[in-house]
Amino acid sequence: MSRRTRIITTPAPGGPDALKIETRELDPPGPGEVLIDVAAAGVNRPDVFERMGLYPPPPGAPEGLGLEVSGHVRETGEGVDHLRPGDAVVALAAGGGYADIARADMGCVLHAPQGVDLIHAAGLPETVFTVWTNVFDRARLQPGERLLVQGGASGIGTTAIQMAAAHGARIAATAGSEDKCALCRELGAELALNYRNDDWETALRESGGADVILDMVGGDYTARHLSLLNTEGRLVMIAFLKGARVELDLMRVMLKRLTLTGSTLRSRSKDEKAAIARAVETHVWPWIAQGKLRPVIDSVFTLENAAKAHARMDAMAHAGKILLTP
Amino acid sequence: MSRRTRIITTPAPGGPDALKIETRELDPPGPGEVLIDVAAAGVNRPDVFERMGLYPPPPGAPEGLGLEVSGHVRETGEGVDHLRPGDAVVALAAGGGYADIARADMGCVLHAPQGVDLIHAAGLPETVFTVWTNVFDRARLQPGERLLVQGGASGIGTTAIQMAAAHGARIAATAGSEDKCALCRELGAELALNYRNDDWETALRESGGADVILDMVGGDYTARHLSLLNTEGRLVMIAFLKGARVELDLMRVMLKRLTLTGSTLRSRSKDEKAAIARAVETHVWPWIAQGKLRPVIDSVFTLENAAKAHARMDAMAHAGKILLTP
Repeated sequence: MSRRTRIITTPAPGGPDALKIETRELDPPGPGEVLIDVAAAGVNRPDVFERMGLYPPPPGAPEGLGLEVSGHVRETGEGVDHLRPGDAVVALAAGGGYADIARADMGCVLHAPQGVDLIHAAGLPETVFTVWTNVFDRARLQPGERLLVQGGASGIGTTAIQMAAAHGARIAATAGSEDKCALCRELGAELALNYRNDDWETALRESGGADVILDMVGGDYTARHLSLLNTEGRLVMIAFLKGARVELDLMRVMLKRLTLTGSTLRSRSKDEKAAIARAVETHVWPWIAQGKLRPVIDSVFTLENAAKAHARMDAMAHAGKILLTP
Repeated sequence: MSRRTRIITTPAPGGPDALKIETRELDPPGPGEVLIDVAAAGVNRPDVFERMGLYPPPPGAPEGLGLEVSGHVRETGEGVDHLRPGDAVVALAAGGGYADIARADMGCVLHAPQGVDLIHAAGLPETVFTVWTNVFDRARLQPGERLLVQGGASGIGTTAIQMAAAHGARIAATAGSEDKCALCRELGAELALNYRNDDWETALRESGGADVILDMVGGDYTARHLSLLNTEGRLVMIAFLKGARVELDLMRVMLKRLTLTGSTLRSRSKDEKAAIARAVETHVWPWIAQGKLRPVIDSVFTLENAAKAHARMDAMAHAGKILLTP
């Protein structure tokens, strides 16, 4: 049985043109592993950092870019009981998702949710897992609380807005254009602020501040966030587009009893990812079936055009997820 | 019925000599209030800051210094059902504890625990409430985890070490002399490091780092703490003796999934303090009865010698609690 696949690698780190298509013959699935015939793969910010040589893959990760896929189970390794060849699935991959065939640990493979096109479903795992583990698990967003989503029109942002709204929270979001702000409102944000034009900080403060902030910006935003958070507020950091070295007045943290925390998905153990996957199936998949959550798709490129997909993400031109199809 | 009492005030902020004894006729207890004939009052770091004019009392607080007392109930206001005149109690006060008669909200008055002298019991409320709400409630210290206590020989420190040990955690502590380190070990610390002599950071790192850090130092220690914390570690800040403005690399927070938080006791609402009091009665009082926790008393001064008591705290000469008796 051939397991020949294209993968996308970066032999020399750089811009979008650093992406190269190569061909590999994959090993059969090991114990607990699943090979998936890819329907689509999601493009994520960490892929860009990896392309630039800033984010080396963890040891043992499958070769090539790509952290999430949708598709059909092709083969299962020993001990994989809940999946059969042909099952429609989505999966979080440790790498190698931009491909014809991808490899994932069984704990990170979920049956595709009802109510969404299988290609579009490729845009779910990274954002849904990230929002669940950070906003719901770490920051414990409660119904009625106000969530601020920085970058509300991004893949993570569009997912966070919808999941928080489904949970009964109130959402404020920032985005970089009027169109993107309109998208945020359509998805459930009660307040959408253009960070290029508005004095978004004043508008947010005057409308009640924030109880939880999902931040991918960092830099000088961090101190502003401590100032915007209400008593017992939580700041969850998932990326630092403006840098991670910051100067802070921690007196605010003590006096307002704030919590600063954050996490990355890729560094979590298989067991931790599997636990998140189970929580997602239980709590998030029903929201999709009920029409409360859908992957917001910006664009779909073929594998050959992966460089164009990355250029679009680099330019921050996208709203929602960018996908690649074999 | 006379309610004449001495109190200690600071008409002009300054050093220990700024403390003045004055006399007041107190109002009768209002609804939910309790007047206490003081057996002893604890001296706490916030009292020093208040004396220096750095920490104004919250609106409505009783006049004068002093945040905790032991004694006997003298009078109760309307709606106080669980306390009777003559009951031996300890209480967290919003102010005015350095006195013959102190006022407290009924939710912050606890029956004195079994197994400890009533005068010594005055050293319990501030430290036990602070350690409970920060180390146990906010940071969720688990049995088997390693707690680092900065300032292990302080009032907070001696309490934190004993409570963490009673809970089954492992404790590392720092202190400023060999005698103080010996005290930390005697109270249950497996590792006690002299921060003036040792390379305490290296010793701590090589012996397994920390899962939770109780910090009253701040300043340049904060970045070191982020480096010493293990994955999923928690830093709880309760004071900033070296300052609250810090420069941090938040990438560590994200990659190790750390949590930074903190709180002050005095700013909490009556209901929040009452909830802490109930948790303390349930979880901490039994440790005292079982001999696992005792107030470590540095020295006892009379009210007239409050300036000497403050001078001792200013000089960091104390180990354990400093008390005042009427």
